[in-house]
Amino acid sequence: MEATTFVLFGATGDLAKRKIYPALYNLFLDGKLPQEFRVIGLGRRPFSDETFQASVEHAVHTFSRRKAEETAEFKQFVQSFSYCPLNIDNSDDYKKLLQLVQQYEAGMSGTPNRMFYLSVGPEFFATIADNIKASGLGDTKGWKRLVIEKPFGHDLPSAQQLNAKLSKSFSEDEIYRIDHYLGKPMIQKLEILQQSNPVLQALWSNRYISNVQISASETVGVEERAGYYDHVGAIRDMFQNHMLQMLMMLTLHLPENSTPEVVRFKKKTILEALEPLHRDNIAAHVVRGQYTAGSIAGKEVASYTNEPGISSDSMNDTYVAAKLEIDDPFWRGVPFYIRTGKRMKEKYTRIIVEFKEAFKQTTKATDSNQIANLLIFEISPNEGITFQLNSRDPQNKDQFKPIYIDFHSNGAEAPEAYESLIHDALNGDPTFFAHWDEVELSWKWVQPILNAFADNSIPLHYYPAGSNGPAAADELLAKNGHHWWLDSEPDQHKQQLKGEQQYVYTNH
Amino acid sequence: MEATTFVLFGATGDLAKRKIYPALYNLFLDGKLPQEFRVIGLGRRPFSDETFQASVEHAVHTFSRRKAEETAEFKQFVQSFSYCPLNIDNSDDYKKLLQLVQQYEAGMSGTPNRMFYLSVGPEFFATIADNIKASGLGDTKGWKRLVIEKPFGHDLPSAQQLNAKLSKSFSEDEIYRIDHYLGKPMIQKLEILQQSNPVLQALWSNRYISNVQISASETVGVEERAGYYDHVGAIRDMFQNHMLQMLMMLTLHLPENSTPEVVRFKKKTILEALEPLHRDNIAAHVVRGQYTAGSIAGKEVASYTNEPGISSDSMNDTYVAAKLEIDDPFWRGVPFYIRTGKRMKEKYTRIIVEFKEAFKQTTKATDSNQIANLLIFEISPNEGITFQLNSRDPQNKDQFKPIYIDFHSNGAEAPEAYESLIHDALNGDPTFFAHWDEVELSWKWVQPILNAFADNSIPLHYYPAGSNGPAAADELLAKNGHHWWLDSEPDQHKQQLKGEQQYVYTNH
Repeated sequence: MEATTFVLFGATGDLAKRKIYPALYNLFLDGKLPQEFRVIGLGRRPFSDETFQASVEHAVHTFSRRKAEETAEFKQFVQSFSYCPLNIDNSDDYKKLLQLVQQYEAGMSGTPNRMFYLSVGPEFFATIADNIKASGLGDTKGWKRLVIEKPFGHDLPSAQQLNAKLSKSFSEDEIYRIDHYLGKPMIQKLEILQQSNPVLQALWSNRYISNVQISASETVGVEERAGYYDHVGAIRDMFQNHMLQMLMMLTLHLPENSTPEVVRFKKKTILEALEPLHRDNIAAHVVRGQYTAGSIAGKEVASYTNEPGISSDSMNDTYVAAKLEIDDPFWRGVPFYIRTGKRMKEKYTRIIVEFKEAFKQTTKATDSNQIANLLIFEISPNEGITFQLNSRDPQNKDQFKPIYIDFHSNGAEAPEAYESLIHDALNGDPTFFAHWDEVELSWKWVQPILNAFADNSIPLHYYPAGSNGPAAADELLAKNGHHWWLDSEPDQHKQQLKGEQQYVYTNH
Repeated sequence: MEATTFVLFGATGDLAKRKIYPALYNLFLDGKLPQEFRVIGLGRRPFSDETFQASVEHAVHTFSRRKAEETAEFKQFVQSFSYCPLNIDNSDDYKKLLQLVQQYEAGMSGTPNRMFYLSVGPEFFATIADNIKASGLGDTKGWKRLVIEKPFGHDLPSAQQLNAKLSKSFSEDEIYRIDHYLGKPMIQKLEILQQSNPVLQALWSNRYISNVQISASETVGVEERAGYYDHVGAIRDMFQNHMLQMLMMLTLHLPENSTPEVVRFKKKTILEALEPLHRDNIAAHVVRGQYTAGSIAGKEVASYTNEPGISSDSMNDTYVAAKLEIDDPFWRGVPFYIRTGKRMKEKYTRIIVEFKEAFKQTTKATDSNQIANLLIFEISPNEGITFQLNSRDPQNKDQFKPIYIDFHSNGAEAPEAYESLIHDALNGDPTFFAHWDEVELSWKWVQPILNAFADNSIPLHYYPAGSNGPAAADELLAKNGHHWWLDSEPDQHKQQLKGEQQYVYTNH
């Protein structure tokens, strides 16, 4: 990897401390950073390099998955960080920054590259991009890349405007839009699992799949983000980006020699094949929810409208469930049920593939115990893959009994999402970033929902905090004869499915 | 369950003590014996009921999977055992036995049944069956059943003769031929796994399966059975019965409402569809092996011909490998590789289904690390099911890394083979017993191999004790571009596949 300057806007922010510095440290440990690598942290307040380095060191000690040792190497890592005060609106500050970058580049070999990482609010993206261009920071003999965080726009028009602005300073292939769900190890595995396993390829279509359920369930409420969250809701905060990205990664069928371009093309194709929603069918496809007071793990929690910073008449969505259909030869007829919510019963992100029952067998075993074949991808908190199959209870041959064939990785060994994403961006691999086409098509598909929420043309369903969401979301599936899996299964099954139950291996 | 007298020939033998008494005790614990149940143990030597009961008690204490408690219930169990001395050739003894049976039956309600369990050498089967008939023991108002152990014949003619003799006293549906591999929990699951899981149904044919490998590997030598074993070899001791039964259980496709008759019909159909061997093709399909000196787990062991009781010029087979083909629409073109041997490197029984590679993908990941999809059924020593899939190493994205999705049962809870088999026989369920059709067809298929071994028309390959068998068995697969799985994989993989490695589950 060639010499690179990593210019970080928002260097004193929470994301930088919790995610970016620990990720850089772990990449450093694995020898995955360029040999010549300089981080210039930017922030409004003045700091010395030493103070900044101390805060980086503290962040690594606090948040890194691997413990930092006080070695000469670790010192070397920390000393690659410099600080430069910068007012985002002040064009002179960018010139000073350029001088600093050039000063470090003078000590580097080859043609040094510049990576601009915008760990700041989206309202600053356009200004920063403009100033990077105007100041000459964008003129580099090596490559330049722009890494930005979500949200990318507030709706379709604002996303298009933002992209138009960024495009003046960076070309599409220089823009790396982070969707950190695309950095999660299990999501990254979906593509390769399907591509490299004939067994999964054989099963991966409407011929064998009945329906797919993608759930991202949080137990937290709005926390400190009330003002922001009340403005965006679950639909913008989770659904338009993370949930649709997971849908694409699960459903894409890749040909041989899939380059990042092919992956992106196929993802785009999925979104283009999504059956569009419109005013007449939206109520039959989307459930809007908001939590009322309830209890989670024995603790009483307030209703959404009683959260600090939320107005008592807010109609904001803290929960969205939707039924999506992909009109292509692989997926036609397979409903994709997607839901996400706050203040739910449990915290998890999970994809469940339910297989069709080819023909109902009536053996001497009672049918009532025979359950669907499921393939379950646990994305968080544990990473895992589980097949749920039917078997016979050896103690009672007339009864079916599910067995769970599962894989759970040792989470401590897996790199965090930000590690692999930053590494990919440094390497110029855009596979696991959101292309503008995906972002625009996602907003296009979601826009009728935004409109319906805005004019209250579909109902707001309430659900008690600590529940599995509003009853209307159950009815959404019941219409097709389906139900959300793992909402009401006995705890023992869930433990097995989550890999929390360790089997005892004995010889016999 | 109706009143039953369980008449046990060979009551002082090893099998009775190790398997039958513990099995009866565990069935008793689970309430799976008839309420009115009397065991009459038979043996040449005279014993009092009390002495016999004490030996039963001792056997249960020593060999039962569940510990026997000194309760009133346990006493009641032990007191249901009586003893009767009997000389197998003496017809008067059978009359005395009849009187004893009738005496016990007089105290039973309903129409008592008689189950004759022959835990004796096969040379006594015909004599005993004749005497049961001649003495009037076979005349019962309830049902009568004959349970016999292998071997059933020494070759096709002797098996046919034996069956003709037994048929004079018992009809086919009264004869329960035990093949204890059919009692193993994982073998019993094969049928229901395929029948009740659309995912497996979808994959269960030559469309997706490349080849199947069935291995039963022992580390022991001939032990105390030299005289017997040198006369039968691996082909009769393991292959003709256990190995072919496993093949049938894996490959049968069952329709709806499968009765035991349907299961047996389908098993017979498999054997009928086996491509026959003959003098010209046998060398290309069968490998005969015998172990030479070697070491197992660091311990030196003698060659077969140096075992006590084996002549130094014995050509007996301690190892057989064969390639079988089933000429039916499901399995045409799928080789079934079957092998069994003594003094092998490891002790296990395992079925591996290797799936076809639909199309070789050349992604940026190097192909060399991409391995076949395998579905592995561990039958012993641990019961388990494992899917081997390809995934990406999260630490090194350019490399494939296999992942193992596995299920391992808690062996201590599973009933032993003899429990479920005795229970089935008491219930009149013949599903997991060998029908005469299967026995006869097995001998028919094996007979050309017996002939070739007898006249030495195919070579005897030597393999060192502690190895995976002769090189010729590897060549048998290499001809088709296949290889035996798990022979040479790193220990870590094997441990994962066997469920011996416990994963650490962490949140992240």
